Amino acid sequence: MSQKTVSIYDTTLRDGTQGTGISFSVLDKIRVAQRLDAFGIDYIEGGWPGSNPRDAAFFEEAAKQEWKHAKIAAFGMTRRGRISVEEDSQVRMLLAAETPVVTIVGKTWPLHVTEVFGVCLEENLAMIADTVKYLKAHGREVFYDAEHFFDSYREDPAYSLATIKAAKDAGADLVILCDTNGGSLPGFVGEVTRTAVAHLGASVGIHTHNDSGLGVANALAAVEAGASQVQGTINGYGERVGNCNLVSVIPTLQLKYNIPVVPDLTQMREVSVFVDELANVPHDIRAPYVGAAAFTHKGGLHVHAVQKLARTYEHIDPSLVGNRQTIVVSDMSGQTNVLMRAKALGFELEKGSAQVSEILTKIKAAENEGYEFEAAEGSFNLLIRKALGLYRPLFELKEYHCNYRNLGTNGSDLCEATVKLIVGGVPEYTVAEGDGPVNALDAALRKALRPFYPWIDTLRLTDYKVRIVDGARGTAARTRVLIESTDGNTNWGTVGVSDNIIQASWEALVDSYEFFSAGR
Amino acid sequence: MSQKTVSIYDTTLRDGTQGTGISFSVLDKIRVAQRLDAFGIDYIEGGWPGSNPRDAAFFEEAAKQEWKHAKIAAFGMTRRGRISVEEDSQVRMLLAAETPVVTIVGKTWPLHVTEVFGVCLEENLAMIADTVKYLKAHGREVFYDAEHFFDSYREDPAYSLATIKAAKDAGADLVILCDTNGGSLPGFVGEVTRTAVAHLGASVGIHTHNDSGLGVANALAAVEAGASQVQGTINGYGERVGNCNLVSVIPTLQLKYNIPVVPDLTQMREVSVFVDELANVPHDIRAPYVGAAAFTHKGGLHVHAVQKLARTYEHIDPSLVGNRQTIVVSDMSGQTNVLMRAKALGFELEKGSAQVSEILTKIKAAENEGYEFEAAEGSFNLLIRKALGLYRPLFELKEYHCNYRNLGTNGSDLCEATVKLIVGGVPEYTVAEGDGPVNALDAALRKALRPFYPWIDTLRLTDYKVRIVDGARGTAARTRVLIESTDGNTNWGTVGVSDNIIQASWEALVDSYEFFSAGR
Repeated sequence: MSQKTVSIYDTTLRDGTQGTGISFSVLDKIRVAQRLDAFGIDYIEGGWPGSNPRDAAFFEEAAKQEWKHAKIAAFGMTRRGRISVEEDSQVRMLLAAETPVVTIVGKTWPLHVTEVFGVCLEENLAMIADTVKYLKAHGREVFYDAEHFFDSYREDPAYSLATIKAAKDAGADLVILCDTNGGSLPGFVGEVTRTAVAHLGASVGIHTHNDSGLGVANALAAVEAGASQVQGTINGYGERVGNCNLVSVIPTLQLKYNIPVVPDLTQMREVSVFVDELANVPHDIRAPYVGAAAFTHKGGLHVHAVQKLARTYEHIDPSLVGNRQTIVVSDMSGQTNVLMRAKALGFELEKGSAQVSEILTKIKAAENEGYEFEAAEGSFNLLIRKALGLYRPLFELKEYHCNYRNLGTNGSDLCEATVKLIVGGVPEYTVAEGDGPVNALDAALRKALRPFYPWIDTLRLTDYKVRIVDGARGTAARTRVLIESTDGNTNWGTVGVSDNIIQASWEALVDSYEFFSAGR
Repeated sequence: MSQKTVSIYDTTLRDGTQGTGISFSVLDKIRVAQRLDAFGIDYIEGGWPGSNPRDAAFFEEAAKQEWKHAKIAAFGMTRRGRISVEEDSQVRMLLAAETPVVTIVGKTWPLHVTEVFGVCLEENLAMIADTVKYLKAHGREVFYDAEHFFDSYREDPAYSLATIKAAKDAGADLVILCDTNGGSLPGFVGEVTRTAVAHLGASVGIHTHNDSGLGVANALAAVEAGASQVQGTINGYGERVGNCNLVSVIPTLQLKYNIPVVPDLTQMREVSVFVDELANVPHDIRAPYVGAAAFTHKGGLHVHAVQKLARTYEHIDPSLVGNRQTIVVSDMSGQTNVLMRAKALGFELEKGSAQVSEILTKIKAAENEGYEFEAAEGSFNLLIRKALGLYRPLFELKEYHCNYRNLGTNGSDLCEATVKLIVGGVPEYTVAEGDGPVNALDAALRKALRPFYPWIDTLRLTDYKVRIVDGARGTAARTRVLIESTDGNTNWGTVGVSDNIIQASWEALVDSYEFFSAGR
C-alpha cells in the first residue's frame, strides 16, 4: 500500500459553501486557496462560474496568483440536453475561468437523467462525451464527477458503468465516483470502486458525503479498492451533513496507511482552525486529530495513566498534526488533574494538601454556578492565587454604572459608563463612552487605572463570547461571558457569570486585568 | 444479516461524562436514563460508583425506578493486584449499587499491565477471572470490557486472546472488545473481531472511539464480523474526540442493515436533542440523520431537484428518524429557495417578480451586515411583509433607555429601563426593573403595550443567544442576538444585529412581538 499515490482534491470553496451557515467572500476564498496550496493540497476547486457570479471573480483573481503546488479547478456540469456543447453558455464560462483543471459533474442515475434533465439515456451519454472532448480539446485537465454513482449502480449497474466509460473514452483524465446522498456503506463502496477500476482499466477518484457518519470510512474503503484521489472539504463542510472531511482523511492516510499526501502534516491543525476562522464557525473541540479536546484527558484514571505513559491513551503523538495534549480541570478532577494544571501555570502544590482540597472545592462550587474554566485559564489562575493567599486586587470597587440611551429610528444612541473605585489609596471616579456597555465600562476602567498602572494599554481584548447557562428561562437566564485578551505575545481567557450580562462582563474584564497584572 | 440481534449499550452517563464540557446532575442522569429506557435502549451504564460519589447517588435513585426495558449497569474495574477480590472496596461498591448488570474493565495490553498496574501478566489474568467469578456468584449479569484490545492484539495476540478467554471461562455473559484509543481501522477491527468470536466460541460486543473519525465505521465492521452488542454514547460524547455515536449507529443498523434495534426510530432526533439540552450543549446542525441541516438543501441546483423528486438528494426519508426536510434561505438562494421558504410561511410570491427580486436583495444586504435568518423565521417573515407592503408596526419608538448600577461587593445592583413610545396614537412612558438590561427593557415594553395589546402576556421568551459577528475586534464587535419565543403552542426565532448588545436585543425583541402580532 505504501507505493500507492493518492492525490487530494479540495472542494471547500465550492461544495463546502453549499453547507448551512458557510459562506466566503472572494478575498476569503483566495486566502483559503493560498493556505491550502502552501499546505500541499493537489487540487483546489474554486467555484462554479456558471452558477455564481462571485465565483467568476475568484477565478479572475486566482489567475493572477502564483500557485506553488496546487492546480486550480473550475466546476461545472455536462452540456444541456439537445444543444451542442459549443452553444452551451455554462460550458463557455468554464473555459473563460482560464483554469488548468475543469471538473464537470454529470448524471449517472437513470431516474435523474429522465426526470431532472428530461433527456433519454443515450443523449445523456453524448452530453458526457461531448463536454469532456470539448474541454480536452481546449487543453484542460478534465475530471468527470459521476453523480449518484453508488445509488445508480445499485439500480442499473450497466448504465452506470456506461456513463463513466463514456467519460473515460472521451479523454477524461480521471473519473470520480460520487456517493452524492452519503447513504452508502463502506463494503459496497469498496466493491463498486473495485469494479469501476477494472471496467475502466484505470484508477478513479472518490467523493463521499457524511450523511450516515461514514464519509471518511467510505473514502478510505475506496482507496483500499484502488482509488487514487480523495475529494472532500476542510472540516467536512458541505451540503446537508457535509462532505468527506479531509482533516480526518489526510492524517489517517499519512500516519496509518503510510501514504504520503502532504509534505508537512504538523500544519494540519492550523489549516483546520484557519478555515473555520474565515468561515466564522467555532472550531469543533471534538474534531478528530485537530480538535482542542482530541488529546484532552479528563477522567481521573486516564490522566493518571497518561502521565505515566503518554502513548497509552493517544492513538498518535499529537504534535504530528500540530496539536497538543491537555489536561482538563473539571469537577471530575482527581487531585492529579488539578496538580498538573496548576503546575502548568507555575504553582507547585502538594498532593493531598489542604490547599488542593480547597481549590477542588472552590472549582466545584464555581462550576455549579455556571463557571467553566476550560477556556479561562486567567480566571483559573486567580482562583488558585486566592486559595494560596497570593491574590492582590488591583483596586477596591465602590460602584460602577452603565447607561444606554437610544433615541429611536431618527435619533442616535449613547452608551456611557462610570466607574468609582479606590486604587493605591486614591479615589478615582471616571466616565467614558463606548459602542456598547462593555466597551464603555472597559474605557472608564482604563481611565481610572491608567495613572497607577501605565502598562494597562499593553492589554487588548480580542474576543468576547456569551453563553446563556440556563437558557430555558429566557432573558432572566444566567449569562456566562468569556473574554479573550492579549498583550501581543500571549493570549488568555477569563470568565464571568451573573444573571446580568453587564455584571458577568465586568467580572471577566477585571479578571483579565488582574491576571495580567499578576503575571508581570 | 437480518436474523442478527444486536443489543445497544449506552454509556452516555459514564464514558460520555468524561468528555470535555459534559456533565450531568443526578437528576439529569435519571431523566436521560428514563428517556433512553422509553426509546428502547437495552443497557444503560449509569456511572462508576467506586470513582464518583455522585454516581452512588444515581444508583440509589435508579433502584427506586420502574424500568420498562433497559437494564441498568454499574461500571467498575477488575480487582486490584495482590489482594483478594473480597477485600477490594471498589468491587464491593459495585455490588452495593444493586444493579442487574455490572460491567468491569480490565487490562489487555501487556504494557499497561506491567507499567500502569504494576503486576505480572499471570496475576492480571487472575484479577480478571476472580472479579468476574465473584460478581457472577452474586447474581449479576456480567460484561467484561477488554481495554485497548485492538492495540494489544497488534503487539501480543496470544495474551490478548488469553485475557478475554479468562473472562469468558469465569462466566462473563459478554466480552466487549474496546478500541480505547480510537486509532484502529475498520478492516483490522473486522478481522480481529472475527478471530475473537472464533476463539471464544461466542459473540462479543464492540466499544469504539472516534479519534480517527471512524468510531461508527469500526462498530459496523465489528457487527459485520459477528459482534452482537454496540457500546456508545448519545451524540458521541466521551473522552477526547468521543465514543462511538449511537445516534449514527442506530438508524444505520435499522435502516441499512435491516437489524431492528429500537421499536420507534422516529424518536431518534428528539432523543438526541433532549440529551444535548440537558448537557447544555448546542445541537450539532450537521449531525448525521438528526442535525437540523441533515436534510437541509441550500445549493440552487439541489433545491430544484429536491422539489422534483424528494428522494434524489436524501439517502433516507427524514421522517423515519423524526427529522424533516428544510430549504434554507441564504445569499446563495436562487428564486426557488425564496419562493419555497415564503410559501411555507404562507406567502404566494410570483416567480420572476420584482417583489422576489427585492426580497433577495434585502436578504443579501442583511446577511452582509451579520444577520442570519436560518433560525430566525420570525424576522424573515417580517422582512417579506415589509417588502410586500403588509407590515404594520406595533408602535412608534421615541426613545428607550437602560441604566445599570452596581454598588460593589458589599452593595446591590439595579437594572432599570425606560421606554417612550406612541401606540395607537397615545404616548406611553414606562419604567421597569429587571435582572439584566434585556429583561428590564422587555418588562418596560410590555407595560407600555399591554393596555392596547392585552394578548402580550401570551408571549414568553424561552431562549436568548448571543454571537459576536466580528469577534476579532473585542468588545467593539458586532453582536448578533437570537431570541426564541413561544406562545405555548409554537416557537419562533427573531434576530437583531448591532455594535451594541442592548440595541441588538431590542431589535430581536420587537421583531418577536411584531411577528406574533402579525400572525394573530
